[in-house]
Amino acid sequence: MGTRTEAGRRPERKLTRKGQETRRRIVAAAAQLMYERGVTEATLEDVRAAAGVSSSQVYHYFSDKQELLLAVIEYQTQSVLDMQEPLFAELDTMEGLRRWRDALVEYQLRLQCRGGCPIGSLGSEVAETNPEARLAAASGFVRWEAAIRSGLQAMHDRGELDGDPEELALATLAALQGGLLLTQLQREVRPLEVALDAMLAHIAAHTTRG
Amino acid sequence: MGTRTEAGRRPERKLTRKGQETRRRIVAAAAQLMYERGVTEATLEDVRAAAGVSSSQVYHYFSDKQELLLAVIEYQTQSVLDMQEPLFAELDTMEGLRRWRDALVEYQLRLQCRGGCPIGSLGSEVAETNPEARLAAASGFVRWEAAIRSGLQAMHDRGELDGDPEELALATLAALQGGLLLTQLQREVRPLEVALDAMLAHIAAHTTRG
Repeated sequence: MGTRTEAGRRPERKLTRKGQETRRRIVAAAAQLMYERGVTEATLEDVRAAAGVSSSQVYHYFSDKQELLLAVIEYQTQSVLDMQEPLFAELDTMEGLRRWRDALVEYQLRLQCRGGCPIGSLGSEVAETNPEARLAAASGFVRWEAAIRSGLQAMHDRGELDGDPEELALATLAALQGGLLLTQLQREVRPLEVALDAMLAHIAAHTTRG
Repeated sequence: MGTRTEAGRRPERKLTRKGQETRRRIVAAAAQLMYERGVTEATLEDVRAAAGVSSSQVYHYFSDKQELLLAVIEYQTQSVLDMQEPLFAELDTMEGLRRWRDALVEYQLRLQCRGGCPIGSLGSEVAETNPEARLAAASGFVRWEAAIRSGLQAMHDRGELDGDPEELALATLAALQGGLLLTQLQREVRPLEVALDAMLAHIAAHTTRG
């Protein structure tokens, strides 16, 4: 699994603090453009202009668009996980799972149901044309799934869940992804709500207390 | 709902039989290229060459790429629904739901888990840049969801299901879509299996017999 989860992540060169900030500004600009226009339509020249840097700066940090794309997938994975981080620790109770569900729904409402999942959107776009980027997106999902599984595993270890934490976590992530896609296409939060509620009811049915 | 489900579908001009065949050949070629390369990368010239027709023929049937894209979304929706059609009639029993689940899983195995959902992939690619195409993809999902709901509604009407058929159908479609995306990214059928099994178990828990 080690090589797989690290797919496409090159060791970063040692950068000065200012260098790290510039690199991050380029990645954030690229992430925004790829989100708005798609990977194909976001050119390095667009990224350069949006980040307010020179061409030589872009090429100082990224040898080509592929390297930048992999950095964007990593950046989006980290953003998605960071945002949920405070809630992950509580996924070992039904109340915690419901708070996580509510936070995901509220976040989509704030976005007016636009954008879908940044990892899912990138993954879907590159899946059949760019194996390295596909693996990077898959590895982002492996990390997300692990965070969900960790809570369910704790419930299981306390004897409060009699289902398989691994399967339940994977099914929950799938319901979440499908819910986000349908929510994005319909611009209504209901698909996400209904999908997550069904999975939480399924998990609740496997709990050994109320 | 009427206008919504018809989103982006223009009334077709009366075509001769040969005209219908040529139009269909162009749409099928476009669907294949958009599937392989993405919507943006598939140019009208590529489509023309792949379909083995002249430029003037392409423009005879489609005024621009947008019109062709909408025809491709309709074509992919119809293909996806046609393939499941024989199984839809049986979605009013748990056995029928399981056969449908098995058929979806086997189909992905035959594809070596490549391609994901044609409607979901197109929808994800156009969602933030092309509202008309987004609505066309959303309308494809509305039809798919209706086919699933119809079986669950029949179970409900016979007094064999005490859940809400509409919510269960939407949640099942979401689990299916998320399962397909993760299966496509990981090139493993397990996410699809686990996601559908969880939803079928959830539905089974709402049945009033066995």
